[in-house]
Amino acid sequence: MKIAVMGGDGFVGWPTALHLSDQGHEVHIVDNLSRRWIDTELGVQSLTPMDSIQERTRIWHAETGRRIRFHLIDLGRDYELLKNWLGEVRPDAIIHFAEQRAAPYSMKSDRHKNYTVNNNVNATHNLLNAMVELNLDAHLVHLGTMGVYGYSSVGAAIPEGYLPVQINTADGRQASQEILYPANPGSIYHMTKCLDQLLFQFYAKNDGLRITDLHQGIVWGTHTEQTRRHPQLINRFDYDGDYGTVLNRFLIQAAIGYPLTVHGTGGQTRAFIHIQDSVRCIELALRNPPQRNARVEIFNQMTETHRVRDLAEMIARMTGSEIAWLPNPRKEAAENELIVDNDKFLALGLEPITLESGLLGEIVDVAKKYAHRVDRSRVPAVSAWTRDIAPTLNHDPEGVRLRSVS
Amino acid sequence: MKIAVMGGDGFVGWPTALHLSDQGHEVHIVDNLSRRWIDTELGVQSLTPMDSIQERTRIWHAETGRRIRFHLIDLGRDYELLKNWLGEVRPDAIIHFAEQRAAPYSMKSDRHKNYTVNNNVNATHNLLNAMVELNLDAHLVHLGTMGVYGYSSVGAAIPEGYLPVQINTADGRQASQEILYPANPGSIYHMTKCLDQLLFQFYAKNDGLRITDLHQGIVWGTHTEQTRRHPQLINRFDYDGDYGTVLNRFLIQAAIGYPLTVHGTGGQTRAFIHIQDSVRCIELALRNPPQRNARVEIFNQMTETHRVRDLAEMIARMTGSEIAWLPNPRKEAAENELIVDNDKFLALGLEPITLESGLLGEIVDVAKKYAHRVDRSRVPAVSAWTRDIAPTLNHDPEGVRLRSVS
Ligand SMILES: NC(=O)c1ccc[n+]([C@@H]2O[C@H](COP(=O)([O-])OP(=O)(O)OC[C@H]3O[C@@H](n4cnc5c(N)ncnc54)[C@H](O)[C@@H]3O)[C@@H](O)[C@H]2O)c1
Ligand SMILES: NC(=O)c1ccc[n+]([C@@H]2O[C@H](COP(=O)([O-])OP(=O)(O)OC[C@H]3O[C@@H](n4cnc5c(N)ncnc54)[C@H](O)[C@@H]3O)[C@@H](O)[C@H]2O)c1
Repeated sequence: MKIAVMGGDGFVGWPTALHLSDQGHEVHIVDNLSRRWIDTELGVQSLTPMDSIQERTRIWHAETGRRIRFHLIDLGRDYELLKNWLGEVRPDAIIHFAEQRAAPYSMKSDRHKNYTVNNNVNATHNLLNAMVELNLDAHLVHLGTMGVYGYSSVGAAIPEGYLPVQINTADGRQASQEILYPANPGSIYHMTKCLDQLLFQFYAKNDGLRITDLHQGIVWGTHTEQTRRHPQLINRFDYDGDYGTVLNRFLIQAAIGYPLTVHGTGGQTRAFIHIQDSVRCIELALRNPPQRNARVEIFNQMTETHRVRDLAEMIARMTGSEIAWLPNPRKEAAENELIVDNDKFLALGLEPITLESGLLGEIVDVAKKYAHRVDRSRVPAVSAWTRDIAPTLNHDPEGVRLRSVS
Repeated sequence: MKIAVMGGDGFVGWPTALHLSDQGHEVHIVDNLSRRWIDTELGVQSLTPMDSIQERTRIWHAETGRRIRFHLIDLGRDYELLKNWLGEVRPDAIIHFAEQRAAPYSMKSDRHKNYTVNNNVNATHNLLNAMVELNLDAHLVHLGTMGVYGYSSVGAAIPEGYLPVQINTADGRQASQEILYPANPGSIYHMTKCLDQLLFQFYAKNDGLRITDLHQGIVWGTHTEQTRRHPQLINRFDYDGDYGTVLNRFLIQAAIGYPLTVHGTGGQTRAFIHIQDSVRCIELALRNPPQRNARVEIFNQMTETHRVRDLAEMIARMTGSEIAWLPNPRKEAAENELIVDNDKFLALGLEPITLESGLLGEIVDVAKKYAHRVDRSRVPAVSAWTRDIAPTLNHDPEGVRLRSVS
């Protein structure tokens, strides 16, 4: 297959491109390198030393004889360029990672809110629009997030995209219907993924496009089979307060002997998946495209759920770290249940890597190995969700240390 | 009150601005005049001779002594300008009409799809973003559309925004919940209004903004109490295939002795409201703002529903016109029921003007009066919803005549 990986220079995109190239597909990476620019803006860098995309693809070729081609296109801004490129290459499948993906970054300021809405809505819409215009019957696989469901339970396990409900009809009966799960996003970033869902729904209905939306949990882990092959193929590892997920921040804190900082009560339950499983799921989704004119196919791409404080305790147990409690910068419920269906990927043969089995390796092989590169001032989360929350945040990294010791 | 009317140069915005100014409010119109530019792009013009906004506000002042101030700002593109302006004026209420509002225009080409998504999403998001940034506790009243519901019935009357459903819980019970009515947009334009809904939901939840969303039916009629006061205060009347609603096209066809062109079986049911009632509803909504931190207030702003073919027959009866049947350029169900709740506005005292009582006046006072200005070639709808539909459309206006006569 000819596969276009939009956002293929990113954390999930890069190992996906390698995995698919390794299987013999013709892989094209399209990226505007905005994430590298954002690293520059924030003054942060990947824990792992990450080469340029040009260098990484060169090394991949040297190691394997396979070529991954890189194309610098901004999906949100360069509609004509994107359309012309798609029209030339006419890929069989398109994997769409090309969005601003950090919730804290999306809440930093009005400029960051606008950037996230603009970038993400336009990237997705330009892609759909061009596919229709070019009469391109490619399978579009999009990376969405568990966050579109919101983290409030309706009292049932979260289904894979569609919720069966009963509606009272005018004549007093109950009619059953499946609806797109009611969106309840917790940040501007998550909201853009809800907007994406409506775009997909419309284009599938009006133009018959074949679309798979993967509602993904928090991805952890660094290495996949392919990234291990050469030190310069290594994946990025974000640990800063904006792009670092809660788990990555814990790993770094454990590695440098800092207390693990838990926000609020740590009662927020989140869904997780290992990067190797994420890449496998994407492969499985590619192998099982929906029919033309079918509704959008939705998978929950996650393998386990944990409360944040339980995760902290798991890592504390493995490493002997302490735990420090901080105010929550996010506007969200202090505690939530999260039960999620993921039967579809399991039925297709996914065998999950668990946190319990893999976390220690991650601490030793990655976090401790590169601990000398850590910039401690970058670990705390500093983006507040509302003006009321902002003054409660402690922006001083040493403050964390003091509070936890006392 | 100090009221900002975003999109106040448009068909609903202008009479709203006059109505509120007449009641003594301090009214500011913000508009980028894009609709006038689109008229130029399409080579069409309002049936009624429409003066510049500067001239219209000058005449309003001369007639009444009241001032309406006009500000040229693009809500979608000029975030900083908008924010600065809002920060200076700090209106008590903001009425948001400033979007590209024609479904056929939104489906014309890939460029028009992108324009509509960009313009509408950014206009709405910039407004919300700036309000939060400025800590501006204004009541935001947005004009949405009945089209967000989709025109497919769930077997119950369409409620005002929120649908009560039952969900099967894990332990076999049924839990009741009210959800935002599942979106089912029929065009890119309607889809942007669904995206708006999610933006409103998020900003009401995260930042406590007070927002009212009016799900409006097709607005008909030209005059309100205020536009009648001077010939140069007259409202615009669109009859072209893109901006002219089905009703306006019928009125023009009746006035110039053309057959009334019905698409498909004419079995599509639509909701309607007179412009005078629309303006009154907006006033009622302004008088009844939601609380801070409440959910978005949603009203169905319509007063009656009709099948398109029944409308055609009503007008044929009043005028003796013939009816011609054409292929439908839209991808939609041929026939649909539409039962809509509008109890909230009725409870607040709205007394609807009916089509049965008002249509004839509209034909005589407006359509026939200005019939000499009609450009016949502009009446047919030419924007196709999909590539399959495009070739079935007859772009030759004389073709209509021949088919109906034979
Ligand atoms: N990492 C996670 O834990 C996680 C969890 C759930 C969902 N996701 C989703 O998976 C996708 C990939 O996530 P990631 O962690 O790899 O993010 P990332 O930031 O590492 O990668 C995104 C890539 O897309 C590129 N990009 C962004 N906007 C673009 C545009 N307009 N045009 C072209 N390229 C653009 C960036 O330069 C970057 O290389 C995202 O859509 C994200 O929302 C990620
Ligand atoms: N007319 C109807 O039948 C109808 C029905 C349902 C809903 N609505 C909604 O009511 C609102 C007004 O409709 P209308 O018929 O008056 O439309 P209109 O096109 O006559 O008026 C819209 C006005 O907004 C302005 N505008 C558009 N984008 C702008 C931007 N980015 N910045 C500043 N100004 C901008 C235009 O120049 C125009 O003057 C729309 O949002 C529409 O979706 C209208």
